[in-house]
Amino acid sequence: MHNINWEALRGYCQKLLMTQGLSAEDAFLVADCLVDADLCGVESHGVSRMTIYLKRLETGVVNAKTQIEVEREHPASAALSACNSMGMVAAKRAVDLAVEKARESGCCIVTVRNSNHFGMASYYARSAAERDMLCICGTNAPPNIAPTGSSKSYVGTNPVCMSAPTHGAPIVLDMAPSVVAMGKVILAAKLGKSIPLGWALTADGKPTEDPNEGMKGTVVPIGGPKGYGLSLFMDIFSGVLSGAKFGPHLGNMWHDFTNPQDVGHFFIAVDISKLTDLETFKTRLEQMVGEIKALPRSEGVSEIFVPGEIEHNRKEARKANGIELSDVVYDELAALGERYGVKMDF
Amino acid sequence: MHNINWEALRGYCQKLLMTQGLSAEDAFLVADCLVDADLCGVESHGVSRMTIYLKRLETGVVNAKTQIEVEREHPASAALSACNSMGMVAAKRAVDLAVEKARESGCCIVTVRNSNHFGMASYYARSAAERDMLCICGTNAPPNIAPTGSSKSYVGTNPVCMSAPTHGAPIVLDMAPSVVAMGKVILAAKLGKSIPLGWALTADGKPTEDPNEGMKGTVVPIGGPKGYGLSLFMDIFSGVLSGAKFGPHLGNMWHDFTNPQDVGHFFIAVDISKLTDLETFKTRLEQMVGEIKALPRSEGVSEIFVPGEIEHNRKEARKANGIELSDVVYDELAALGERYGVKMDF
Repeated sequence: MHNINWEALRGYCQKLLMTQGLSAEDAFLVADCLVDADLCGVESHGVSRMTIYLKRLETGVVNAKTQIEVEREHPASAALSACNSMGMVAAKRAVDLAVEKARESGCCIVTVRNSNHFGMASYYARSAAERDMLCICGTNAPPNIAPTGSSKSYVGTNPVCMSAPTHGAPIVLDMAPSVVAMGKVILAAKLGKSIPLGWALTADGKPTEDPNEGMKGTVVPIGGPKGYGLSLFMDIFSGVLSGAKFGPHLGNMWHDFTNPQDVGHFFIAVDISKLTDLETFKTRLEQMVGEIKALPRSEGVSEIFVPGEIEHNRKEARKANGIELSDVVYDELAALGERYGVKMDF
Repeated sequence: MHNINWEALRGYCQKLLMTQGLSAEDAFLVADCLVDADLCGVESHGVSRMTIYLKRLETGVVNAKTQIEVEREHPASAALSACNSMGMVAAKRAVDLAVEKARESGCCIVTVRNSNHFGMASYYARSAAERDMLCICGTNAPPNIAPTGSSKSYVGTNPVCMSAPTHGAPIVLDMAPSVVAMGKVILAAKLGKSIPLGWALTADGKPTEDPNEGMKGTVVPIGGPKGYGLSLFMDIFSGVLSGAKFGPHLGNMWHDFTNPQDVGHFFIAVDISKLTDLETFKTRLEQMVGEIKALPRSEGVSEIFVPGEIEHNRKEARKANGIELSDVVYDELAALGERYGVKMDF
């Protein structure tokens, strides 16, 4: 394990990304999104992704120069093409536009096509909540969930993400519609760990503890047809509506360095102040949170949490005390420094 | 069992509702929504609810005379008060307004406060899809899910509902964020049947097969904190945002005939044609559906379905062949006819 200061880690990732042609501003955003995931404890979407992101930039299968086109625009909607730019940059631009237009109209949906992996959905939803918006957002991803009745994957572990502001930290739900995200299976494989039964199925639909078999198979949707249905609708909004690829047609981030992924995202922002008094909303939401936290606790439970609270607490602690990087991820980052000629100063 | 023609059933329910002061139009809508649930096979939200609806109208705890006030309105949002009118009538008015405003702006959210139980969420989402909209909608409901870490309920089995149009039947997801809706536990109790382990917990948080114990306790959320989080956000949109009651503050439909429930709902409509070509959207969605249905099937599976398809097929079959009402529900309806002086003509 290596204890790393989060800002030093972000700075290093930013420099690495700049070697592949990203502007300082875009590289900062991508690095911030990745380090934010590590701060929150969502290591599957953190700096462990730097190797693949840099490889995709280096091979040119992702455009380093950001280009975002507004293809259709109305008072409460916009359809963007990311023109194969980095997913984070496109997603941030899209959520900013949704917030701006919702501020005028009350509500706005922005879709993005021809994009790439955008990291952790909560990064964008939280940014909308910090501007006093409610947000619903999502993305599609390459397939790893089988529709009920088949053992062949069709939809991805497309996140369902929602956020709401309080006077303090926003409430943020960012969940894969599966028992765990495929990212956790991938990370277990990388760390050489086994996975619990019930997380993943082999390509033949059999339960497995081997993350490498799970990566070739599927992850288990929550509530059976319910998790499959949630994932499908996230793809309808992200892929079918936006004009991006959908289902198994998405490019594979890990193995295909020829064809752009053509990922799609969507962001719905709701301006709370257009529907009710903002202070009243926050006060009522804080009452709700307070009541939940004051419920009688089950045996062995020391605290009841609301969505995103554990991640927020981890983030504060890791900002103060440093991020613990595993040897595997640390060594990968060191190798990237060698490869791309950036001094690793931690 | 009694085989009943769906239109005769709807007409009878409409007449019963009119005896309690509902207009012919409003009574038709409520009856249509209930019978639609029975047609779809969602008996928990069907005509088995007539007794409680009529009792609430008769006691005056629900207003029979519809009054809907638009409290705030912007190009892509509106906040309504249902003034304690019937939930179905308020919900239909709200989704219609969301569709109308989305047609102008691209997207619209409409909230409703001071409402009542609105039946099956998919009734409204489907109606939006039939007008070429994507829809996300929900409602809150009295508490029956315990936040993770407690065995005391705080949020309801608030449905998560989404719909999308095709050239044929819309795709409609309408799911409780629990393994089953409390309505299924209630129906099992009414029919004197036991429930499978894993559906519900007793008031002490213990698994139970007794639906009466389950009704006093909680139902199990899908994916643990994920189902709890989904339910919480449906209440944030439906209750906290709209200005309705939320969590355990909602009035109880079954036992409280003094205080209005003050239920909240929300409806987001997205005009597909503002974001992409509508025909392209439908063709792409149909491609997706076709590909899913053509996936290799697991052993013993004769067909793979998309969300809402099973309900749609049931509806077509029951329209043709009649609805099978249980003796319990049939006898309840007969008793209502006696009580309110309506001839039961089937």
